Amino acid sequence: MNKVTVSLSSFLCLITSGITGTNGYAQPTDLPAVTPAPVEAIVTSELPAEEPAPKNVILIIGDGMDDHQITIARNYLRGASGRLTLDTMAHRGVAQVLTVSNEQPNQAVYVADSANSATSIATGVVTSRGRIATSAGTDRDLTTIVELASRAGIKTGLVSTASVTDATVAAFYAHISLRACENPDMMSDALLYDRVPVDCSPDLKENGGLGSISEQLTMSQLDLALGGGFEHFTANAEGQSIPVSSIAETAGFAILTNIDDLAAASLENRWLGLFAPGTLPVRLQGENGRKAEKPEPSIMNRVHWSQGDVTLPAPMLCEANPDYAGTPSLKLMTDRALAQLSHNNTNGFFLMVESASIDKESHARQACGSIGEVAQLDEALESALAFAADHPETLIIVTADHGQSAQLVPTTSLFDAFGLPIYTPGQTVRIQTPEGALMTVNYATNSFLLEEHTGVNAPLFTNGIIPVPTMLTQPDIFNVMEKFLGLKD
Amino acid sequence: MNKVTVSLSSFLCLITSGITGTNGYAQPTDLPAVTPAPVEAIVTSELPAEEPAPKNVILIIGDGMDDHQITIARNYLRGASGRLTLDTMAHRGVAQVLTVSNEQPNQAVYVADSANSATSIATGVVTSRGRIATSAGTDRDLTTIVELASRAGIKTGLVSTASVTDATVAAFYAHISLRACENPDMMSDALLYDRVPVDCSPDLKENGGLGSISEQLTMSQLDLALGGGFEHFTANAEGQSIPVSSIAETAGFAILTNIDDLAAASLENRWLGLFAPGTLPVRLQGENGRKAEKPEPSIMNRVHWSQGDVTLPAPMLCEANPDYAGTPSLKLMTDRALAQLSHNNTNGFFLMVESASIDKESHARQACGSIGEVAQLDEALESALAFAADHPETLIIVTADHGQSAQLVPTTSLFDAFGLPIYTPGQTVRIQTPEGALMTVNYATNSFLLEEHTGVNAPLFTNGIIPVPTMLTQPDIFNVMEKFLGLKD
Repeated sequence: MNKVTVSLSSFLCLITSGITGTNGYAQPTDLPAVTPAPVEAIVTSELPAEEPAPKNVILIIGDGMDDHQITIARNYLRGASGRLTLDTMAHRGVAQVLTVSNEQPNQAVYVADSANSATSIATGVVTSRGRIATSAGTDRDLTTIVELASRAGIKTGLVSTASVTDATVAAFYAHISLRACENPDMMSDALLYDRVPVDCSPDLKENGGLGSISEQLTMSQLDLALGGGFEHFTANAEGQSIPVSSIAETAGFAILTNIDDLAAASLENRWLGLFAPGTLPVRLQGENGRKAEKPEPSIMNRVHWSQGDVTLPAPMLCEANPDYAGTPSLKLMTDRALAQLSHNNTNGFFLMVESASIDKESHARQACGSIGEVAQLDEALESALAFAADHPETLIIVTADHGQSAQLVPTTSLFDAFGLPIYTPGQTVRIQTPEGALMTVNYATNSFLLEEHTGVNAPLFTNGIIPVPTMLTQPDIFNVMEKFLGLKD
Repeated sequence: MNKVTVSLSSFLCLITSGITGTNGYAQPTDLPAVTPAPVEAIVTSELPAEEPAPKNVILIIGDGMDDHQITIARNYLRGASGRLTLDTMAHRGVAQVLTVSNEQPNQAVYVADSANSATSIATGVVTSRGRIATSAGTDRDLTTIVELASRAGIKTGLVSTASVTDATVAAFYAHISLRACENPDMMSDALLYDRVPVDCSPDLKENGGLGSISEQLTMSQLDLALGGGFEHFTANAEGQSIPVSSIAETAGFAILTNIDDLAAASLENRWLGLFAPGTLPVRLQGENGRKAEKPEPSIMNRVHWSQGDVTLPAPMLCEANPDYAGTPSLKLMTDRALAQLSHNNTNGFFLMVESASIDKESHARQACGSIGEVAQLDEALESALAFAADHPETLIIVTADHGQSAQLVPTTSLFDAFGLPIYTPGQTVRIQTPEGALMTVNYATNSFLLEEHTGVNAPLFTNGIIPVPTMLTQPDIFNVMEKFLGLKD
C-alpha cells in the first residue's frame, strides 16, 4: 500500500524553493556575457550544393508570463511607451492552455499547472495537473520532443532558472505521475491532485518504473541541462549507495556548479549545470525585500465599506537581490547552450529555455522579482535572435505555460471622485517606476500563502520563419516543432 | 464659478446604466438578421480601368475585452478546445494602452478609462482619464478620424450596445473635458479626475464651447449612429425649448427607436438609432440574475486562514436575459450599418462597432453578461468578415480599449492537497459550462460597488490585408487607419 502523506511544508518548499533562497556556492562576480562561437555549416565542393542547413528550434518559456506580466515588466523596464525585445517579434498570437481531469480524462479543467502545460508542449498530449509526460488517468508514458529529436540525431538542451528537475524542464525528458518526485528521496511523498492521493511509488525502479526525475535525467540523451537543483542530485540513487550526481558523471555529464565552470566547460562534453541547491536566486526584489502587502482599513471602514479610511502599502522601488550575485544569468546560460549545441553540429538542435521565476515570484506576491525574470527572458531572447540571424534555419518560439495572479490595477481608483476608501481585497505592491510614475500590482486570487495560476490563454511569439496560426493550442506547439525538425512521418 | 457637485448615484448610473436595465420600448420579437445588400462598385467601360475600389475601415472595439474575457467566453461558447471567430483572424498582436495625468501631461498613468483610450484610438493623441477627444491639461480639441473622413467625403458610422453618447462612441465625434456630460442637463455635474474637480461648464455653448455630447452628435457629419441613449436626446438643447432629438431630425437624422425602424430605415437617410433609454440590455445573465458572490468563511476561518471551512457560491448556469427580447443584436446593427454605408458609395467608409457591455458587466461582476457580449462581438465580426470577402479593400481591426477585472481562477485550488479552506478574497462566480465543466471567475480589484479596469495591454486583430506590427500603441491604431484611408498627407 502506498504511503500517503501530505506535507504542506514540503509542498510549499517545492513551489517556492529559491524565491528567497541563496545560491550557496562561492562564486565570482558576474562575468561578461560569453559570446557564442557558433560553427557555421561548412559547405564545400565535396558536399552537394543543395545540402540543407541544419534546423534548430529554440523554445523559450516564460513560466506564468501572461500579458499582465509582460505589461508590468514593459512599464518598469522600458516605460509605458517602450518596447521589449518580445514586442519586436515578427509573429504574435496566443496559445490556449488545455488541461483535463485525471479522474475523467475527457473533462476540461480550465486552469493548468506547469507540469501538465509543459507536458502539452513537450509531447502534444493534454494531461492532468501535476503529471510529467504521462497521460491522465492511464499514466501512460508520452514521448517527448527531446526523445524524438535525440533518436533522430538532433542535439537537445534544456536551460532554466529553476531546478533542472522542476516541472517545466522535467516534462521534456522524464515520465512520472507527480512533479514532486524530483529525487529518489521524494518518491513516497504524496499529494492530492484532482482530490486523488498520488505518490510516485509505481514509478520506483523496483516496481518497474523509471525512477525519480533526477535519475531519469541521468538516463536521458540530453546534451545539456543548465539551471538549479543540486539538492536533487545528492541523494543516493534508488537501490544504490552512490549519489545521483555520480550516475550523471558516469553517463558522461560534466557537472558544472558555478559560473566559472560554465565559462570553461568544453564544448565537446555533455553538461549538467547545477548552479544552486534549488531554484536560482532572482535578479530583482522589492525594496528591503518587501513584497505585496494588505491595505489596512480603519476601524470605521471595517464597519461599512464606504466609511473611514484606508492605509495603502507605501510606494517602493525595485532593487537588486544581493543573493543573485554570481548567479549565471539566463542569457549567459543560453549563450553557452547555443555554443555547445551548435558546435560541430550539422544535424541541428532543440533547445528549451525557461525563465521560471516569473511564476514563482508571482506566487509569492513579489512583483519586482517577476519583473526581473521577464527581463532575463527578454535578454535570453536577444541571444536567440542573434543566433538565428547567423543561422537562418532557426525557429524561435516564445510562450508562457499559463497565466498568473498579478493584475495591474489603478493607482488612483477610477472611482476616486467620491473620496471613498477604495482598495483591493487582496494584497498590493505600489512600485515607483524609473519613468517616475506609480504602478500598482494586485494579487487577489486566494486566501492562501501563495497565489494561484489563472486560466487565461498564453501569449505566443515566433521569429516568423514559418507560418503559424494566430491561435494555437499548447499541443499544437509540439506539432509545429515536430514538423519543423522533420520528426513527423 | 462652476458649481461642483459630486454625485455618487449619478456616476454609478453613468457606469452601470443598462446593466440591469430594461429596454423600455414595446418591440416585436427579434427579427431574422437582415442580409446586407451592398452595392458593388460598378466598373463600366466609361470608367478608367484603374479606378481603385473604395477603401473601408471596420474598427470593432470590445470594451474591456482583454485576453481573460476572450478565454472565459471561448471556454463557455465553444469549449476549451474550440475557436471563436476572433481566433481565426489573420493577424493577432497587442496594443499598449497609454494614459497620462491631466495635471502632469508628461506623466504616465498605467490604467485607462474608456474615454481616454477611445480618444487615443480616435485621434492618435494620448490624454487623461475622462476626456473625450480633448488634450490632457490644455483641453484642446483633438481632430478625430470621423472628422477627417467626413471632410474627405468618406462616409462614417458608429454602432454600440451602449448609449451613442457613451465614452467610447463619443470620442469619435465629440470634444469635451468630461465623459459624463452626455446631455444638456449633465453639463454642471462635476466629478474628480486625477483629484481635480471638473465639470463641463467651459464646454457650454454660452461659454463658447460645443455643448453636451448629444448636442455635438447632432452637429456631426456622421451618416449613422446606432445604439442606446434615448434619454440623452429628450432634454432641451442648451438655450432652446426643443429637445435634442428635434435638433437631430432637423440635421437630417431619421430617428430609429426599435428593431422594425431599423429594418425599414431607408438607405438614403442618415440614421440615429436609440434602441433603449441608456445602455442596451445584454443577452445573457447569471441564473436567476445572480452575479459574483463572496465566499463565506466559517467563524473559525475568520480567526485563522488555515482553520475552519468556507462556503463557496453555488455553481450556476448562464441564461437568457429576458430584458434582451426585442433588442437589436450588435450583428443586426452592424449588418444594417454596412448596408447603409456601402449604399451608392464609391468613396469608402469608416465604421466603428463597439460591444460595450463586456466592460459594464465585468464592472458589475456579471460574468455571464460579459460572455454574451463577447458572443455579440464575435457575431458582428462574422458580418464584417463576410462584407470584406465581397469588398477586398476593407480593413478590419478588432481590439479592446483596456483590461478588465475578471480572472479565470482554479475551481479546485492548486493547493487543494492540504484540505485547507482556500478561497478568493474577492467575489466569484462558478459557471457550469455547456461542455460539462465548472469555470470559476474571480473579481477582486477593489472593495467598491464596482470593479476597476486593469492596465494589461489589449489584444489587437486584423484581417491581414495590410502589414501591421505585432505590437502597437493605441495611437498607432489611429495612424494605421488614417494612412489606410488616405487621410494622411
